[in-house]
Parts: sequence; C-alpha cells; structure tokens
Amino acid sequence: MATPLFHADLTVHTQSHDYPIVITEKTAIDHESMASQIAPYIVGQQVLIVTNETVAPLYLEALQQLLEEQFTVKVCILPDGEQYKNQTSINQIYDALMAAHFNRDVTLIALGGGVVGDMTGFAAASFMRGVNFIQIPTTLLSQVDSSVGGKTGINHPQGKNMIGAFWQPQMVLADMSTLKTLPARELSAGLAEVIKYALIMDVDFLTWLEQNLPAMMALDLAVLGEAVKRCCEYKANIVAQDERESGVRALLNFGHTFGHVIETHEGYGNWLHGEAVAAGMVQAAELSQKIGWLTCNEVARVKRVLSLANLPINPPPIEVQTALGLMGHDKKVKQGQIRLILLKSLGKAVLTSDFDAQLLTEVLAKHHSQGTTESIL
Amino acid sequence: MATPLFHADLTVHTQSHDYPIVITEKTAIDHESMASQIAPYIVGQQVLIVTNETVAPLYLEALQQLLEEQFTVKVCILPDGEQYKNQTSINQIYDALMAAHFNRDVTLIALGGGVVGDMTGFAAASFMRGVNFIQIPTTLLSQVDSSVGGKTGINHPQGKNMIGAFWQPQMVLADMSTLKTLPARELSAGLAEVIKYALIMDVDFLTWLEQNLPAMMALDLAVLGEAVKRCCEYKANIVAQDERESGVRALLNFGHTFGHVIETHEGYGNWLHGEAVAAGMVQAAELSQKIGWLTCNEVARVKRVLSLANLPINPPPIEVQTALGLMGHDKKVKQGQIRLILLKSLGKAVLTSDFDAQLLTEVLAKHHSQGTTESIL
Repeated sequence: MATPLFHADLTVHTQSHDYPIVITEKTAIDHESMASQIAPYIVGQQVLIVTNETVAPLYLEALQQLLEEQFTVKVCILPDGEQYKNQTSINQIYDALMAAHFNRDVTLIALGGGVVGDMTGFAAASFMRGVNFIQIPTTLLSQVDSSVGGKTGINHPQGKNMIGAFWQPQMVLADMSTLKTLPARELSAGLAEVIKYALIMDVDFLTWLEQNLPAMMALDLAVLGEAVKRCCEYKANIVAQDERESGVRALLNFGHTFGHVIETHEGYGNWLHGEAVAAGMVQAAELSQKIGWLTCNEVARVKRVLSLANLPINPPPIEVQTALGLMGHDKKVKQGQIRLILLKSLGKAVLTSDFDAQLLTEVLAKHHSQGTTESIL
Repeated sequence: MATPLFHADLTVHTQSHDYPIVITEKTAIDHESMASQIAPYIVGQQVLIVTNETVAPLYLEALQQLLEEQFTVKVCILPDGEQYKNQTSINQIYDALMAAHFNRDVTLIALGGGVVGDMTGFAAASFMRGVNFIQIPTTLLSQVDSSVGGKTGINHPQGKNMIGAFWQPQMVLADMSTLKTLPARELSAGLAEVIKYALIMDVDFLTWLEQNLPAMMALDLAVLGEAVKRCCEYKANIVAQDERESGVRALLNFGHTFGHVIETHEGYGNWLHGEAVAAGMVQAAELSQKIGWLTCNEVARVKRVLSLANLPINPPPIEVQTALGLMGHDKKVKQGQIRLILLKSLGKAVLTSDFDAQLLTEVLAKHHSQGTTESIL
C-alpha cells in the first residue's frame, strides 16, 4: 500500500476533437472511476455496452451496474474472436441500437479487446452517420494499439480491415488490472505490438524491453503500465501528425502486410493478430537484411526479443504465389506496387517499394520451405 | 442551335474539401465532358462504376467506353429500387472492389439516382476506411438533393438511412439530358424535393414554381436546369454552414419524418421517396396550421403546388400508434422527444419539439381514417 499505484493521463490530438487516454493500475470499474473518468464523456442518457462472450462474465456486470445508476444501459454480447469481426456481428450491434430505440445521443462503450473495439468503433461511425463511443480495452494489444487513433472496421472475407472508418473515441480507459485475467497467449500477442514500437521508432525502448519483458510476462502491472504509456505516447504523436495514414502513420503497420497474409491464409482466429505480426516482423527484418540495412546480428536480436515474449518467429507454410496474391490486396499497395515497411536500422522504419522483388520472393520462399508441409500441393 | 444550352457551375464548401457541381443541358457523357469535367477528378488509374439494372442499359456503355480510354474500369450493377438499399447491395460493391484488387487509389462513380448515389457514397466512405467518389445523378431527385452534401448510407430493416456516413464526393455532374429517359412518376418524385426548398426557404421560388412547373413536367431542360441550380445553391449554402446536421441542415428534412413513416410502413420501394415526402410535407403543413403558424389557404396552396406536380397529398392509412412508434426511430429524436420541421410561414421552416402531442396525433389520425381501411384492425 505504500507504493502509489501506476497512473498516467495522455491527450490525443485529432482533427475532429482531442481526447484523453487514462492508464491506471487501480481498477477502473468502480464508483470513483465512473464518476471522474467515464461519466463525464457520456453526453446523453443512452449507453450501449458492446462486449464479447469471454469478457462479459469478467467485467460486464460491474460496469453495467455502475452505469445504470446514471444512464439507460443496454448490452450487446458478440462471439469472441477475429473470425467474428464481420458484417454479421456489426449487424448485431445495429439491431441492439434499433431495438433500444437509441438515437444520435447514444454513447457506445467497447469493453474488450481489439476486435470488440474495432467493431464498436465502426458501428459508432456508421450508426445514424456517427455517434459517440468510449474504449475500455481489456487486452494488452488493444491498450497499446487498436484503442488509440480511431481506426475502426471489420474484415472482408478476402482481406483484413477492408471495411471501416476513421472515427475517434471520446476517451480511452486502459485498466491494467484487466490484464490479470488475460490468457498468457493473448498477453504475448499484445507484446508483439509493444516490441513493434521499439523496432520502428526507439532502439532505447528495445533495450528497456529486453530488460523488462520478464517482469511484464510475470504481470507486474506497474511495468506493464509504463510500457502501455510509452506505446500510447508514440501512437498519439503519430496520429496527431497523420490521422488518416497518408504518411508516417503507415509505419505502425510494420510486420502487418506479412502478418495479414498469415491471418487471411490460415483463417481469421487461428493465428492471433499479434502472433501473425510477430512472424511478419521477422520477415520484414529479414528482407531489410537482404537489402543491406540490418546485420545478421540485428535480425537475431529481433528474433530473440520476440522469443523472450513467447512469440512465434516463423510463419506457417504458405505458397509464395499465394502470399504475393494476398499482399496485392493490402491497403498500402500503390498503383499496383507492393509497398512494405522495412527497417533502415533498429528503431528506424521506412515505407518503401524500392526493393528487388526477387528478395521478397526469397524471404517468402524461405519460410515456406521451413514450415510443415501440410498445405504444400 | 441559336439558344445557348443551359450550363451552371457551383462550388460546395465542406470541412474535408471543396468540390464542384456542374449542371449542364448538353449531354455530359461525351469526349469533351469526360476530358474537361470528369477525368480531372480521378486521381489514380482505378475506376469502379456503380449503377443499377435500369440505368445501365441507358448510359453505362457510353460512360464506360469513354473512361476506358484512360482508366482501368470495372462495373457493379445493382438491382433497382429503395428495397435494395441494404447491406446485401453494399457487399456487392465491396466484392467488386476486392475482385478487381482495387485499393485506396480507386475512384467510385455513382451513375444513377439517389439509391445508387447513397450506397456508392457509403461504400466509398467505408472501403479501406475511405476512397474517392464522383456523383453522376440521373434522376431529378438525386440532382437536386441526395447527390449534394455528402449524406451517404443504407437502410436498416427498421429504419431508413440508419447506417451511413458523411462523405463528400470529388464532384457532382448533373446532366439534364438524362431526365429525358426518367419515368414521369420519378420526375414528379424529384419535384417534391424541389418544392420542399421553396416551402422551407423561399416563397418567391414557390411562386416561380407555380408558374414553371408545367414547363418542367413537359421536360423543358433549361427550366429544369434553372430549378436544379437554385436547389443546389440552397443546399450548398446550408451544407457549408452545417455539414454534419447539428443545426440548420435538419431543415432539409422537412416532410421527411412523416415520409419515412410511410416508406418504412409500406415497405421500401412501394412509395417512392419523393412521394412519401410530398404526403409528409402536407402533414407537416397541417400540423403547422393547427399550431396557428399557417392559414388554411396556405395549406391549400401547398397541396395545390404538389398536385400540380402530380404528387400524392394523402398518406396511406397507418395506425396512429404505429406511426408514432416509427417516428421514435427518427434521427432527429432528441432525449426521447419527437422533433419535427414545421413551417412558421411559407418559405420559413423551424425544427421544433414545442407542439402539443395531441395535435400531432390528430394530424396522423386524420389521414389514418381518410385512407383505405385495409390495415385497420
């Protein structure tokens, strides 16, 4: 009780409005937090909590009861998993809003991980052409990445996050104590995005992570809070510069083009997003090395830090042509050219199409032959 | 050939960007118009034309051939009608974009009426979180109203335009010659929105319409062009003041709350939108009269001008409680209160909830008992 609990407040500046991110080690789902942190950001009387079947038994009842003291509260519980990030689930949210006769006054609250947050955000962006929403991310991945910056959306059967909107929340409340109930595999998946920030923008943070990952894996909430704060600072800074991803924001997709190939090919939900990004970052690092930007030792360091977080460093076997075909759907493709985020050095990323296509093929082929053979014809 | 053809250029000012509306009596689908008016607003190489089964045989081939001289062009043909303004149709657009491997460079072109325009606009707003689009409205209704101002969306089974976005086109090209192929019923439906502008903001324009409606019904394209220009000026002025409908823009929904009840109750597509708005404007005028704002003679003048355009002035029979329930879904409902746009005088509208609920019930009941009895229990 002597040590003060970790607490940080940040502000995200965007074109539509500024909003706070509150990162707290103390549980956010109590009377004090409700009165001081959540309620002031709800404008009308109507609240729809959107969550999923996994998170609902853990946190829904407490949050709902607190909100019901002040607001008319309805609930929409979606199935859990990336494979449900689709039109059917978003229709469940619309149906709940219509059944409740809610209107433009409504505030949606996303209680869950990135999938819940992305879908709730897109429902908020599109219901009656736009209503308010609040993010209460309950996974490390959503706390450090998807809950901040206003990217919302759903998957198309042929591509991840193909349908969506830029739509900013009214506030983000990252409650570190929710990480206590997060499965270890999900914690690792979140660490992939934490490591991503270090690799693309801050080699000192990489060193910090190499020292602190064991504490984070052991659920030291203050250390996790510090990492979340740093990641949100990086992201808020980038979003303020480039909200609609016409420039620097694209760097946050490091490892994601390779990762999306894995997710799409394996079927959404079999590889966690963070796992696919981890293996994708290794591929991007390897291509950076083939170009001559990274040394072998630096690629090994990338693999080591990912392994320290219990993350996969090899993708599943995927035919090279299949992988290239899936890459052709990527949002970063410009005038038919595949563009990738690669590392000029550890801590410095660039978006580029200036690489020999043969080198990309080699990277894809290497992992194809290394994997199991189940999907090879 | 001696009289110069009607031509007008306007600019719409919005938060995201300014864009032109070109209104022309000369066909827009020729080499000259393509080079000077359409092509400059297409940024990349990729074009998807979205149209419907009715408009495609009339104008698609010519437009597609002209575009193919410069761009990679794909086509998506939707079924025709308000009843198809739904998730299934929008998925057809997404599927066409994915099948073509199109990306953020793509420009969507809406070739058709309001339904095509609204759906194409929402697909553009949401594909890859936002791509460009161009409106080529081929109905009077879409030329004077829906193609301008960036309201896009689809219907929910329980409510019209419940899902959508504010998303502005790169340009709007209103080709008066397309009105030659418009069925008379659709022309009348468009005139409902023209008359709406007069009723809510300019009694002089009402007088002008009373004189010129016969010429418009007889397809005098120069007179129609003049009316379209005036309506687009009114609308551009309002959109510049209040793009996201937090104030004055709501006035454009005069007659629409009553009209949406008709459309939803009768099933989308049985009553045309403009027809429902016409009957809805009569109801709104009658409520304005009951409050003491309009005289009986002024209500009669409203009915007369609508009749001159061959529009219905009585709604179908709908139970009062059913109508009130459907009104409860309206986007203008604020903190549970039904708000309506009513007329302070001819040419001056206000958004208000300051009316006796009993008077609204009387207006709804009057038309209920006047209609046929088929839906009365």
